[in-house]
Amino acid sequence: MPPAKRRERLSTEERREQLLALGTDLFSSRSFDAISIDEIATAAGISKGLLYHYFPTKRDFYVAVVERAVENLHTATAPDPGLDPAAVLVASLDAYLDYVVTFAEGWSALLRAGIGADSVVNALVETSRTRFVERTIANLPIDSERAADPLVRIAVRGWVGFVEAATLDWLERDDVDRRALRDLLAGALPGALAAAGVTLA
Amino acid sequence: MPPAKRRERLSTEERREQLLALGTDLFSSRSFDAISIDEIATAAGISKGLLYHYFPTKRDFYVAVVERAVENLHTATAPDPGLDPAAVLVASLDAYLDYVVTFAEGWSALLRAGIGADSVVNALVETSRTRFVERTIANLPIDSERAADPLVRIAVRGWVGFVEAATLDWLERDDVDRRALRDLLAGALPGALAAAGVTLA
Repeated sequence: MPPAKRRERLSTEERREQLLALGTDLFSSRSFDAISIDEIATAAGISKGLLYHYFPTKRDFYVAVVERAVENLHTATAPDPGLDPAAVLVASLDAYLDYVVTFAEGWSALLRAGIGADSVVNALVETSRTRFVERTIANLPIDSERAADPLVRIAVRGWVGFVEAATLDWLERDDVDRRALRDLLAGALPGALAAAGVTLA
Repeated sequence: MPPAKRRERLSTEERREQLLALGTDLFSSRSFDAISIDEIATAAGISKGLLYHYFPTKRDFYVAVVERAVENLHTATAPDPGLDPAAVLVASLDAYLDYVVTFAEGWSALLRAGIGADSVVNALVETSRTRFVERTIANLPIDSERAADPLVRIAVRGWVGFVEAATLDWLERDDVDRRALRDLLAGALPGALAAAGVTLA
């Protein structure tokens, strides 16, 4: 990536947004370890000193980028209240796969915890999974008593693990088309719920 | 753990086995970061120098312990050829849950990649998952053409992710009994396969 031609004058907020967008771009195609602070500063067209002013360490920068990416993912996959539950599931999975395909390398590295013993990043990812579990349960056409059943919660948490594992495996192959994967992911949810004693209409 | 009273005379092989057994014990209840080289040497009743002779770094020791743990897990969950496929699945899941419950802390830390950017450990875990996928597919009552279908492979890989995620979630709760979890894990497999177009008899 060529360095920016000259240092633009940006407000604090604009500069932070620029850096987060740049970080999303950099970490979407390469892992945490593969990118240096020097490269980030050069790509942003700013000094390392100014970069450190916004993010004291590379890890702080990565955490902020992951936090933003998780927010973007949740916004992109938010249920459309005009759709029925089955259509919501399919639309959310399509948006999820759009996102995963766009940020494939960074997403794989994040889920494989390439950054290491970073409890902050792990907590962000775990919180994001919990939000997906809660959103998925809220979208199910079941009564509130069933929705509160711990076994249902474990089944949906397992299904989120299914989605991640199947998608990571799919990304490493080129012999299954995206629609077949999407249908597999959508179809596995009623299967998991049936195993928890919940039959969807 | 009190230090060993005196330094026993063990052969190289016996000493290595003793250290791996001790490591399995230590890492089963605490994470990589929580255990020091000093503590390992003291618990083994040997000098740090002798420990370094067997394992040059704490990470080398951890990798060897994980390698051994993965082997033990695969041995413990090996299919009994006298059983039918459904019974093999249940027996393997029971053995898996025995193992997980015994080594809960270490197992959770391993899957959450608490050791960090350790590509060797990640590769061990990934290889272990692949072996489970292949064993699970080999145990399915389906013909070889179906067994070679990439979508079936992705579905089974997803199911292994389901088993891990659901089990991690279950470990953090105390409101679901183990048999209910086991039945959920077993029941989710035909559900995932059905979503891949495979109906089990």
